[in-house]
Amino acid sequence: MRFSLTSQTSSDGVTEQSFILGEIPGVLFTPEGATGPRPLILLGHGGGQHKKAPGVLAGAYRFVTEGGFAVAAIDAPHHGDRPKNERFLRLAGGMRTRMAAGEDPTELVAAMHDLLAGQAVADWQAVLTAVQELDHVGTGPVGYHGVSMGCGLGVPLLAAEPRVRAAVLGLLGVHGLAETAARLTVPVLFLLQWDDTRVPREHALALFDALGSTEKTLHANPGDHGGVPAFETDEALRFFARHLA
Amino acid sequence: MRFSLTSQTSSDGVTEQSFILGEIPGVLFTPEGATGPRPLILLGHGGGQHKKAPGVLAGAYRFVTEGGFAVAAIDAPHHGDRPKNERFLRLAGGMRTRMAAGEDPTELVAAMHDLLAGQAVADWQAVLTAVQELDHVGTGPVGYHGVSMGCGLGVPLLAAEPRVRAAVLGLLGVHGLAETAARLTVPVLFLLQWDDTRVPREHALALFDALGSTEKTLHANPGDHGGVPAFETDEALRFFARHLA
Repeated sequence: MRFSLTSQTSSDGVTEQSFILGEIPGVLFTPEGATGPRPLILLGHGGGQHKKAPGVLAGAYRFVTEGGFAVAAIDAPHHGDRPKNERFLRLAGGMRTRMAAGEDPTELVAAMHDLLAGQAVADWQAVLTAVQELDHVGTGPVGYHGVSMGCGLGVPLLAAEPRVRAAVLGLLGVHGLAETAARLTVPVLFLLQWDDTRVPREHALALFDALGSTEKTLHANPGDHGGVPAFETDEALRFFARHLA
Repeated sequence: MRFSLTSQTSSDGVTEQSFILGEIPGVLFTPEGATGPRPLILLGHGGGQHKKAPGVLAGAYRFVTEGGFAVAAIDAPHHGDRPKNERFLRLAGGMRTRMAAGEDPTELVAAMHDLLAGQAVADWQAVLTAVQELDHVGTGPVGYHGVSMGCGLGVPLLAAEPRVRAAVLGLLGVHGLAETAARLTVPVLFLLQWDDTRVPREHALALFDALGSTEKTLHANPGDHGGVPAFETDEALRFFARHLA
């Protein structure tokens, strides 16, 4: 696959390099002026979001400036600048309708992640190989950060990809993931929102329970799906610093 | 109540001052050569332990040397150097018998904490007043750290004592504590061991759920009752630094 850098900007000590790898649009965040290898974090966005959604940017900037990491974010299949097919649009519409009606979207969420996972895993594997060939990334240790849909696509990635050595996951239930989660072996920090109206508490606890990793920590906080406290970004930074040092 | 310092030693940058307050034996840990006020952590030990049990000492030394805190530890009623009455000995024997037989000790644990709580709360309140009169402690912010029995006695302390502003609790179920826990308002870091053979997981999750505090975080890790990972001491240090600064 052809890797092309399409634009580059720097601000607040962070260099953002937009790239296209084959058909995958992505952004690489590194410390401004960085040279030589460094740990890399693959940052997976949530459902309906994209590679430069506010939450992705905020996380990427903190991981780069406070941890010295390189961070790669890509548009998930059918997200951001990528084409959407009819099956995706039908599923996404069904999820929106259910959630608006206050109904449990668990089945459709799992079907959506199932639709995207095969391509998403292949995308991340190709992106990982490509960005590690860059001088200012190199073949250092690799982590993955993804919650909600980022967790639904991250669990199969972690099961398939031995180069990823630690992961922050969460905000998702066990539906459709139990067997894949049981194959994980890397340290996991798992985030759970205690009052999540999209993910029943018991389903999320069951996904944490299903993780095969011997080192795994659950962090649960009050609040709904989108209300993860800011201090959990500090926790993620320290988690990656500990495991990717 | 009469406060008497009975001995003083220093090592590794920590000064240990043993004291007796009325009938309460305790130890105050402060940075060697400390002067002036500093945040204070009240450190409650687990069942069958005492003010200088290895886990208490290890925590106290880290809180003092890495956080600059003062730490007070006391023998709980019927523990350490304090006299034990017949009712206590009968309950403790019953708990040991049940646990050795692999039976659920929940009812007896709750009865034990109920027996001790009234005295324990009064003890901590008196100790807090007394040590804050010392020049190298002063009336700074106060935290409480106690898991297992230290949680069972800490929840009623926190409900009764507005001077305590943040707490690390956990390793205990909801039995007998739901109403008291609901009255808590301070930030809580709650530790849970996912494979705790003494505290059923659902009971511990229910105690976290019952806490009235708007800021509360659950940290769950694999392993049995005594297997809290060492990195949770780092977490406790940062939690207290954030809330007692």
